[in-house]
Amino acid sequence: MPNAFVPGQGNLSPEAEAMVERRARVLGPAYRLMYETPLHIVRGEGVFLYDADGRAYLDAYNNVASLGHCHPSVVEAIRDQVGILATNTRYIHDLILDYAERLTATFPDALSQVMFACTGSEANDLAMRIARAFTGGTGIVVTDNAYHGITESVAAFSPSLGPAVDLGPHVRTVPAPELYRGGGADLAARFTADVEAAIADLRRHGIRPAALIVDTLFSSDGVLPDPKGFLAGAVEAIRSAGGVFVADEVQPGFGRTGEAMWGFARHALVPDLVTLGKPMGNGHPVSAVVMRPEVCDEFGRKARYFNTFGGNAVSCAAAMAVLRTIERDGLMENAERVGRHLLEGIRALADHHPCLGDVRGAGLFVGAEFVADRESRIPDRHRASRVVNRMRELGVLISVTGRSHNVLKIRPPLIFTEANADRFNAVMAQALDETR
Amino acid sequence: MPNAFVPGQGNLSPEAEAMVERRARVLGPAYRLMYETPLHIVRGEGVFLYDADGRAYLDAYNNVASLGHCHPSVVEAIRDQVGILATNTRYIHDLILDYAERLTATFPDALSQVMFACTGSEANDLAMRIARAFTGGTGIVVTDNAYHGITESVAAFSPSLGPAVDLGPHVRTVPAPELYRGGGADLAARFTADVEAAIADLRRHGIRPAALIVDTLFSSDGVLPDPKGFLAGAVEAIRSAGGVFVADEVQPGFGRTGEAMWGFARHALVPDLVTLGKPMGNGHPVSAVVMRPEVCDEFGRKARYFNTFGGNAVSCAAAMAVLRTIERDGLMENAERVGRHLLEGIRALADHHPCLGDVRGAGLFVGAEFVADRESRIPDRHRASRVVNRMRELGVLISVTGRSHNVLKIRPPLIFTEANADRFNAVMAQALDETR
Repeated sequence: MPNAFVPGQGNLSPEAEAMVERRARVLGPAYRLMYETPLHIVRGEGVFLYDADGRAYLDAYNNVASLGHCHPSVVEAIRDQVGILATNTRYIHDLILDYAERLTATFPDALSQVMFACTGSEANDLAMRIARAFTGGTGIVVTDNAYHGITESVAAFSPSLGPAVDLGPHVRTVPAPELYRGGGADLAARFTADVEAAIADLRRHGIRPAALIVDTLFSSDGVLPDPKGFLAGAVEAIRSAGGVFVADEVQPGFGRTGEAMWGFARHALVPDLVTLGKPMGNGHPVSAVVMRPEVCDEFGRKARYFNTFGGNAVSCAAAMAVLRTIERDGLMENAERVGRHLLEGIRALADHHPCLGDVRGAGLFVGAEFVADRESRIPDRHRASRVVNRMRELGVLISVTGRSHNVLKIRPPLIFTEANADRFNAVMAQALDETR
Repeated sequence: MPNAFVPGQGNLSPEAEAMVERRARVLGPAYRLMYETPLHIVRGEGVFLYDADGRAYLDAYNNVASLGHCHPSVVEAIRDQVGILATNTRYIHDLILDYAERLTATFPDALSQVMFACTGSEANDLAMRIARAFTGGTGIVVTDNAYHGITESVAAFSPSLGPAVDLGPHVRTVPAPELYRGGGADLAARFTADVEAAIADLRRHGIRPAALIVDTLFSSDGVLPDPKGFLAGAVEAIRSAGGVFVADEVQPGFGRTGEAMWGFARHALVPDLVTLGKPMGNGHPVSAVVMRPEVCDEFGRKARYFNTFGGNAVSCAAAMAVLRTIERDGLMENAERVGRHLLEGIRALADHHPCLGDVRGAGLFVGAEFVADRESRIPDRHRASRVVNRMRELGVLISVTGRSHNVLKIRPPLIFTEANADRFNAVMAQALDETR
């Protein structure tokens, strides 16, 4: 994992050291902590997380608490509903219908049905079950450092989990559409050709294509928003091959890109299925698949769907509060405005720091790519890690992403202000000055 | 699905009819409602659910709200924590450690590690990923009407989802261990032989066995608790073949069987992995895999695990409140005492109703099997359905289970009182009298 704590290293207090030992004993070896010196977090409020010593950290990383930690409207909605009812979809209930209608109203008309789950992994797992039933195929095309989740089915098309997690025999990867690394004016054509080649290879092996699935901001591939519209040809290719296009909006969705509620809008297309997760309940476990009704017809008639907690009344109340808050407080517009300010600030830093080879973003999701030098563009993961860990020492939280772990992953809550962005930039400037 | 509403039938109010239409439009065809005439539920409290007309229903079915709907201790824990912090396992946090230690303390010493997810499906999915990494095998043995969840991987070993959901080529089913249907004194030997034959068949196809997984109360196979200890031989068989035994405690766990916190205790054995779900947070989405540390060693070192919402602070607070309440209020003992009273009452009904071929149970989980007559023992799903729907009309909620949908599934909250059980029995007696 990028930016993972290495046990035995770091500068931990005796108390934190003891907790790390308890973790290893009772949670086992599969869990990872972030940063060279992990954080012991006890409280969150707005754009800040607080550690056990009461120190505040400006959170420019966690997109789950997308409205800010413990947003009052979401907290109130959960507190109210949890005392009234939290039961399941086998009874008729108002909230799931009210929310489902309000949610689908934020999508293009064709995407009018929604099914609920609890995690982004479950949403992607379900989307693939539906895609397979609809297309009769099994083949899946993803980018080469994609992350879509951790169920067995989804881990098999999440190459970013690393070589210890096998890709499925029905999975093909294509190079991430990196404008900075050779895409140039031909990026769309190249990406389309790569997807077509992957489809041809599936067919050559007797595997019928089911889906192309991408995070529409390519978060784990290094944050790749540009140029607008480059996805259209690849989507056309998978559809021509009898497959569907699944937009994974777990990262870019719910207004983060600033210009639209959903990341796929940037590419001026309408997906067949859309998966939602992390920010949907601002921390409450809720996720969904939104789709064209005809896609689910076959699956729905034959294979019933029931997710015990998915779409329960408390989840729907939390999710409704999130959607209302985004709309009421103009948070999409805020993401656009403050995101532009943040991006400009980081680009200004790049003017003085040639180690920053490329700075790109959409709304409140910025990627800043470290290179050894601007001619070779060789990825510099070491410097990226130094900056992330120095910023953490200075009280600002981000992490890294991309195949080479050399891209800063800057993803603050949608309530970020220009003052927050200025503070971020000041700390980043200091970290750049103090690291090498 | 057993006991599913058939659209266009039932005796719905115009309001409920309109909501059913909204469901079909916005949630699509995969969702199912329960009962001939579905319930429009608006509120839950203790052992009661309330419909839109204010009518109370005695809930003898929902094991998610295992402490009763909206239990004050759980509601309070969630209300407190949701205003403090709800972030993830990549930071050090006290609650996950406190809960993990308290939870594993309820297991035999060997089962000392726990990993968190959000749903029982995710827990079973993760358990199988771990089992495969540990054993190097892929083969899975399950009972022939087992239900373990809905991810693609888990649905492939959940035959109760029906013929539209394919079993995996690496999955073998064995007949459910039905004492009532021919098991007799040889049940343990027969079940062991069936599992051995399934393992041999996997091997004959070049598939290395990974796991035997069973719900230790065989809920979807018709509630099969007896005779105690019958699982030991089958567990020995899978271990001899290099596989592991996974106890799915999503149904029987957290004290429901009355005699122990975990259903596997009834069989005097220690599983390699145990999966937990539904009642773990009394409605809050949280689940877990508990295991022997050596089982996870390989998986944990190579394939990191991160579940965004799994083990977050609110989930742990809810789960801690559940565990504390079970222990503080003696709910396991209550399940044992009231469960025995309930079972005796239903057995007394069977004395006058030969349609009840067998009544069995453990703690507050009772199965009552309808047959055409006691000689042929031919399953009578029609009568079971009539009784379930008549009881719903009379204000008591249960459903049916088993391969033939002929077994009443009676699974009240652990706070059920003897008075609740008497009311249940009175209503069941009336439903038996009034149906045929």
